[in-house]
Parts: sequence; C-alpha cells; structure tokens
Amino acid sequence: MSSPLSIKNIDEQIKLIRRGIVDLINEEDLRKKLARNKPLNIKVGFDPTAPDLHLGHTVVIHKMRHFQELGHNVTFLIGDFTGRIGDPSGRSETRPPLTEEQVIANANTYKEQIFKILDPEKTTVAFNSKWLNALTPTEFLKLMSNCTVARMLERDDFSKRYKEERPIAIHEFFYPLAQAYDSVALQTDVEMGGTDQTFNLLMGRTLQSHYGQEPQCIITVPLLEGLDGVRKMSKSYGNYIGIAESPKDQFGKAMSISDELMWRYYELISSKSLEEIEQMRQDVETGKRHPKTVKEELAFEIVERYHGKDKAEEARQGFNAVFAKGGVPEDAPKYECAEGDESAPINFLAASGVADSKSAAKRLVQQGALSINDEKYTDAYAPVKKGKYTVKCGKKNFLLLTVK
Amino acid sequence: MSSPLSIKNIDEQIKLIRRGIVDLINEEDLRKKLARNKPLNIKVGFDPTAPDLHLGHTVVIHKMRHFQELGHNVTFLIGDFTGRIGDPSGRSETRPPLTEEQVIANANTYKEQIFKILDPEKTTVAFNSKWLNALTPTEFLKLMSNCTVARMLERDDFSKRYKEERPIAIHEFFYPLAQAYDSVALQTDVEMGGTDQTFNLLMGRTLQSHYGQEPQCIITVPLLEGLDGVRKMSKSYGNYIGIAESPKDQFGKAMSISDELMWRYYELISSKSLEEIEQMRQDVETGKRHPKTVKEELAFEIVERYHGKDKAEEARQGFNAVFAKGGVPEDAPKYECAEGDESAPINFLAASGVADSKSAAKRLVQQGALSINDEKYTDAYAPVKKGKYTVKCGKKNFLLLTVK
Repeated sequence: MSSPLSIKNIDEQIKLIRRGIVDLINEEDLRKKLARNKPLNIKVGFDPTAPDLHLGHTVVIHKMRHFQELGHNVTFLIGDFTGRIGDPSGRSETRPPLTEEQVIANANTYKEQIFKILDPEKTTVAFNSKWLNALTPTEFLKLMSNCTVARMLERDDFSKRYKEERPIAIHEFFYPLAQAYDSVALQTDVEMGGTDQTFNLLMGRTLQSHYGQEPQCIITVPLLEGLDGVRKMSKSYGNYIGIAESPKDQFGKAMSISDELMWRYYELISSKSLEEIEQMRQDVETGKRHPKTVKEELAFEIVERYHGKDKAEEARQGFNAVFAKGGVPEDAPKYECAEGDESAPINFLAASGVADSKSAAKRLVQQGALSINDEKYTDAYAPVKKGKYTVKCGKKNFLLLTVK
Repeated sequence: MSSPLSIKNIDEQIKLIRRGIVDLINEEDLRKKLARNKPLNIKVGFDPTAPDLHLGHTVVIHKMRHFQELGHNVTFLIGDFTGRIGDPSGRSETRPPLTEEQVIANANTYKEQIFKILDPEKTTVAFNSKWLNALTPTEFLKLMSNCTVARMLERDDFSKRYKEERPIAIHEFFYPLAQAYDSVALQTDVEMGGTDQTFNLLMGRTLQSHYGQEPQCIITVPLLEGLDGVRKMSKSYGNYIGIAESPKDQFGKAMSISDELMWRYYELISSKSLEEIEQMRQDVETGKRHPKTVKEELAFEIVERYHGKDKAEEARQGFNAVFAKGGVPEDAPKYECAEGDESAPINFLAASGVADSKSAAKRLVQQGALSINDEKYTDAYAPVKKGKYTVKCGKKNFLLLTVK
C-alpha cells in the first residue's frame, strides 16, 4: 500500500483510477479536480438492508481503496432514508421499515466486511437520513423541481414499466433525486457505482450544478462475472464467492474459475498492482509459472483478506490434499448397500445424495464424471461388486462406498 | 334566506344542491351523508394570489351559500402552501413566493368580497400551509405514493404537455395530491370546484379512501358565460362584471345581457329561490311582466350585494335616465368644431374619440348607429350645420357637439 503522498503525478493517479472501470465521466473534469492537489470527496452509496456481501460487491470497494491509496477521502454512504421509510405505498410487505437499531446493526456488519479492504482511518461512514429527514416541504419540492417527468421516464426501469403499463408510484421519482441530493450534501467530487447506476449518478452531476456546486465526476465499475465466467456474480445464480463463506469454500470456488477469468478477478478484486499482475501474466505466457500456482495465489489472497493468513494457508493445504493430489477429504460421506441392483451407480449415486435423482446420476455417468478408485466407470447400470471403494463424481463430490 | 333548520327533507336539499351545477359524484353517496342529519363539511379551494373577483368566480360561492342555508359547514380554503413556495424550479419570475403578510392581506380582501354572499358566522377560512408545511419527509413520500405516474399523466394539462414534449417538473405532480390531502386534513364531505378541477376533486375522493376516510362527494359548477353570452366570463375577454366595479358599471353591464342569459345569471348568481325565478319566467312568458323590468331586478340585486341598496337605487335611476328615457348623461363629453369638413360625422366622430378611427366612424354611420338630436343621420360625409347638438352613436356613446 502506498502512502497518501507517494503518488502525486496526475497521470499515474488516472491510471490507477481507470483500472478495471467501465466509464469515467469525464477525465478532463477529473484532471482539473486532481490538479488542485487537495483530497477529493469520493462517495459510494449502499443499500441499508442486511448486507451479505459477495466478491461482486467488493469491486467498487476495491476502487474506493484505490482512491484511499491516492490520498483521497472516501465516504461509505448508507442509504438508510428510504430503508427507514419502507415502501410508503404499503404495497410491498417485503419492505417493512427498518428501525434505527436495525440500521446501526446493519452498518456494523457492513463495517466488519468493508474494513477488510478499506482503511478505517480514512473512511467516513455516513447515513443519508441525516439530511433527507431534515428536509422541509419547501426544500422537498425544490428538490423535485430539478427534474422533468420526461427525463425521469428515460431511466431504463421506469421506461420499461411505463411502456408495459405497470404502475410507477409518484414517490418512486423521488429516490433518484434523493440519491443525487446526497452528492450535494456531501459536496462529492467523484461518485462511483455499478453500470446499472449510471442514470442516478448522472442525476447527481446535474443536481450539483443546480445547487451551485461543481458537478461530480462519475465512475462506473463493471459487474463481476460469477464463477461460470458468463453471468454476473449473484446469489440467485449460485455462482458467487461470499465474503462470509468458509476458507475452504472460498479457496475451492476461487480455484474452480477459468484461467481467463482469473486475470479479470486479479484486475478487479486483487490488491496487487497492475505491474505485479502484468509480470505474472508474462510469466505464465513464457511458461515460467503454471497458471495453477497463479490461481492459488489469487485464492490465497481472497481467503487471507476475509479470514487471515493462517486460515488461508490451511485452506490451501486442504485443497491441495484433496484435489491436486487426488486425495479424499476427511469429511467425505459414507454409504453402504447390498451387491446387485442397489450397487448399480444409477441407484447408489441417487440414494446417497451424490446425484439429485436417478436421471441425474445416469447423465453424470454418461458424461464420464464417475470414477471408482481412480478409474472411469461408464456403465450406470453395471452393479459394483462387494468391497470398499472411493467413488468420485465430478470434481468435488466424493463418496466412501461399501458394497456388502 | 332559509334558516339552517328549515329544510330537513333530503329531496329538497338535493334540489337546491343540484341548482345550476354540472355534475354531482354521486347522489347516492351524498344522500347517505345527508341522511345522518349532521352538518357536512363543505370545502372549496381558492388561489392565494391577490384576488380581483368577477361574477364568474362567485358561482361556486353562491353554491357554498346554498349549503350554508341548508345548515352545513363551509370552509373557504386558501391554498397558500404553494403560493408561499412560489415556483420552486425558479423558472417563473412571475411567481415569486408570497410572504405571510401578503397571504393575510389577500385573505382579508377575499373575506371582504365573499362575505357579501356567505354568512361569516358559518364560514371557516382555512390555510392549507397549516398541515402541508407540517409534513415530514416520510409523510410527504407516503402522500406521493398514493398515485401512479400514468394516472397523473391522464390529467388534461399534463397529458397535453407530455405529448407536446413540453417539460413537466416532478414537483408539479405533488400539487394535485396536496389539494387532495386538504380533504383528508379537513375530513371533507363535499368538495366543489369548476369543471376544469374535476381531476383534482376526484383525487381527493381517492386519497380519502387510502387514508381510511369516507370519500368526499364532488360537485362541479359551470363556468359563467360572459356578457356576450358566448365565452366564459373573463377579464381577458373584457366580458365581465367585476365585484369591485362601480355601481353604474355593474348596473349598465348587467342590463346589456340578452334575455336568455339573464335566466342563466338568475340561476347561478341570484339569491332568489328557484320558485321565485320560475314565477318571473312565467310572468314574462304570459306578458304579465316586461323582460326589462326582470333584468333591472337582477342588475339591482347584483349592485345591492356589492354596494348596498342606496347605491343600487342610484344606479337604477342613473341607468333609466340615460338609456330608458333617452337622456344624456351629465358627464357626456363635449366637442367643438368649425362648420365644413370638420363637422362631417366621419371627422368629428373620430376626432372626438367617439369612434376609434375614420373608417370606424364611417362604418358606424353606415350601420345606422348615429343619431343627432334623436334623428338618424346616415351620411358620414355630410357636414352638420352650425348649432348645438346632442349626438348619440350606438347605445351608450354620447357627445355634446357644438358646430361654430
């Protein structure tokens, strides 16, 4: 980590700021702000709901970290105003208002997680209810007067719902303005968010002008691809690495990504410098290093960040014992059955729970995923004879099988 | 005027309430409210800007009077909330915010005018800033959550502007809801307004339901036709009778309306009962009374209301001296000219200002509008000989002409 004053050169700052981002609006304005040689106010807004973060969420937090390394002030802004209101239309039972205690508890959970990446000394945690709840009706209306209905209906989700004749309640138009007003209240120089936040971020830029402030620059960061390398990382797709997951799961999941995706993760969520990453890439290309060791280094960095060095070392050893050396994990499930129908893979894979169903078991075997005592086994209907076996199905499922 | 308790019968109440109105939504609900035999809360909202009322504005005030006669409570609601905010977008320089002093001064001017019609003892004057300025941000959002964008864009003016791509600022969507919220705050049973207010009145009905109140009934009153009997009464059309105008002007203007329009004015802005009016109508039809005397009675009622009985009597006598008896008003202008070109009507009518131009003078003479000493004079170019003359051009323009 560089000290706040170690990087002064604007070009170097821009290079780090641009690392992995999707868009910067715009570089010319940002250069002007940087040229004043005073710490900038960086703002990122977060949901007030109970956080259960995965690596996808950390992309923007790493970007905040970059700004901290460059000596700027970052504000982790919790949008508790809307959360404490709930859904005022009363239509959504899933959004009851949060109490002040819940907001504080959620904020503490956030802090535990984000301070694995951010420097607590240089991070301001703020709550937007502070200024939004203090608005008078006059200020409220003044705020709303800053945008037209037509402009608001240009926002992707509003536009879609309006065209599909799905209801948009009037108060929903307030939220983008409230978020934009946060930038006015914080005198934000740079706001960051996902690409899906572009409309809201731009609104902050516009609103600051209307309130007589210099407009903020906006930076959009990409959505991190999930373990499959295709869809965005998301709990609902099951392709995520959770910050709160066990060292073993984090390490194993990180090792399961493709080599290509590995470089993407390095760029977006590693603390290594671009120069270090470039060196590794060259070492892999020239054959000086094996991609697996580079991937192990990434997996180690992730586990170390969220669980510490010892747990990371333990996870690495565990992983290598199982997967790299073909070993069987200590906690592999055991299953007993009689020789005959029961000992046919289609039956014991389903009955033991290794496969979800008989048809799934059949498919796995046909795909060549099954090996018994390290030998491929391709007939789903051929019973296994009496004896004890180490069964492996796919990369990670083990079964200690006893046929009596 | 009937005493509050003299009319109990619901059918009779409905009959008076329906007098001259455009729409009642709906009679069934209103009957239910009336059947409880408790005074209803009647609400009418007025602009907070400096009032300069004409008879068109009084149609709804007469309707409030009817409710007072039936024993109900009427609230004259001044919408000072928006007026005290001005245009929050700052785009309109013509709408600077009103000070509290201005609002109070305007309210007093209103009172002076409306209490010529309403019973001050039974009238509540209220200001909606009282509850709207007290809204917290949470209540503000809750209020806005009660309507959808699509529904709001159905309002005629919004719909038109949206289609024409003229800007609608978001805060403008708040005003119909604010007005509707007034009905919640006042627990209004019946709200009245012009036909152009139907959308807003219905919004009050909806909002009360959402806030757990019995929805108000709404009554729309017609726009009063101006003196021409064609367009709505309006200052900008010049076809109005102003409440603050002189007795003479009020009387003269009232006498200038058509016989047909007279009945309309009787229905909408007279204190006479429907029975009395019906009697007059029959008397005119059977030839028992001349329409002119019935019109004089209307003109008298109007002047009496705003200036008192003595002034009304004076105005009647003045009118009859001039118009009915063909007399010349004392303040008729004098004009002197030499015999010859100057004394030709086309010239002296224009030069004296009786006609706007020579071509207008020529047209008037050709139309037969000119009489000199009570004799038609149809040649615009024939000079008038030496002498003193009473010149009449049209119904109301007199000139004391001296030809030397």
